[in-house]
Amino acid sequence: MALTLDTVEWVAAVTVLSFLEQAHFAWQVIYARRRYHVSPPRMAGPPEFERVSRAQINCFEYYPLFLASMWAAGVFLHQVPASVLGFLYLVARYKYFHGYVEAAEKRLPPLYFAAAMLRLLCALSTAGVVDHFLSRAIGYSLVQSVLHVFGL
Amino acid sequence: MALTLDTVEWVAAVTVLSFLEQAHFAWQVIYARRRYHVSPPRMAGPPEFERVSRAQINCFEYYPLFLASMWAAGVFLHQVPASVLGFLYLVARYKYFHGYVEAAEKRLPPLYFAAAMLRLLCALSTAGVVDHFLSRAIGYSLVQSVLHVFGL
Amino acid sequence: MALTLDTVEWVAAVTVLSFLEQAHFAWQVIYARRRYHVSPPRMAGPPEFERVSRAQINCFEYYPLFLASMWAAGVFLHQVPASVLGFLYLVARYKYFHGYVEAAEKRLPPLYFAAAMLRLLCALSTAGVVDHFLSRAIGYSLVQSVLHVFGL
Repeated sequence: MALTLDTVEWVAAVTVLSFLEQAHFAWQVIYARRRYHVSPPRMAGPPEFERVSRAQINCFEYYPLFLASMWAAGVFLHQVPASVLGFLYLVARYKYFHGYVEAAEKRLPPLYFAAAMLRLLCALSTAGVVDHFLSRAIGYSLVQSVLHVFGL
Repeated sequence: MALTLDTVEWVAAVTVLSFLEQAHFAWQVIYARRRYHVSPPRMAGPPEFERVSRAQINCFEYYPLFLASMWAAGVFLHQVPASVLGFLYLVARYKYFHGYVEAAEKRLPPLYFAAAMLRLLCALSTAGVVDHFLSRAIGYSLVQSVLHVFGL
Repeated sequence: MALTLDTVEWVAAVTVLSFLEQAHFAWQVIYARRRYHVSPPRMAGPPEFERVSRAQINCFEYYPLFLASMWAAGVFLHQVPASVLGFLYLVARYKYFHGYVEAAEKRLPPLYFAAAMLRLLCALSTAGVVDHFLSRAIGYSLVQSVLHVFGL
């Protein structure tokens, strides 16, 4: 099966959205550095600055895992569930970031939700890759059957 | 439209170049740790060490965003503008790194240029994905017309 | 040459494995934060905590470079050497992480091995991309000849 742009277009759309979100987080750190007078290369500052900085670092740290799992799920399973979960992950990360900026405790509920979306993306991509190997061995794809039930 | 290696070869070439640059930055931190006697897991040290460390962290932080936006622009728009902007980004990052190592202020001009290249890559990939959806809806691709003017 | 799922299936399998490893590292930091009472956004703590934290940060920092070089090697050269090296990289990273948690010196042997695997992946992807351009210019692919000798 050849890869075409049409089979990854929604995953690409969520990826483009993720660029804007990452850029938004990066800007918040630049503003916080100015506001709390924390010049690079210093990373230590008032807790208000450190929360913005940690929120950005955490979002950036998980970004490769997010992109790779969404694309693997989109390519090896199906782009619709992959892009829906990816979109929900981005929403949760937005709430996580702005919750963390207010208070360290407020970061937790959206962080748990984002982690759940990431786990689902990893699970879907694992299912897709395992099914890819299995379907060749047994001549039957469970994933295709399930997708068919959902009309995908 | 099926993806072929020929339509992403220049983006791949810039990606390979980016590996060398990331490896170069990583080495600079290893040398700086030895030179300024900062043993892992410690991150704090003299400002000279912290500038090298922060420069490397910043380059690595933005690396996934750079790769994803260059590839999305290369696949959904065209590899020539994507790889040219990607190459200029790598040059700017090189100047940023070695400027930052000398003095914190010297990091800014190349950082602004790198940020501009990254914004352009994100804009091109957004244009490519939006045009991909629009061209199916209205049967006319503005991006293809523009590329045609440039002989691509 | 069109890209198909079959030509990247082993690289995809190692990628899925890498998700599990990254998730495992992330969990270790969460456990260490609880164990050593280091609440976010604080990053400083007892050396035992800082070693876990630095080990995770180092693995996450190199993750994009690992994924990009394994995929570039898999797509532009061949998935079998790319996925074998990628698998060995993941094994080395596991030993690095748990060595570092015990003592800073124990991180070095597996780190050197992981770095060697990463350098090989970068070299293979460079060879693949260079051969891709060269084979069009001179009508002969050295990489294909070498792969043929190995029965790939």
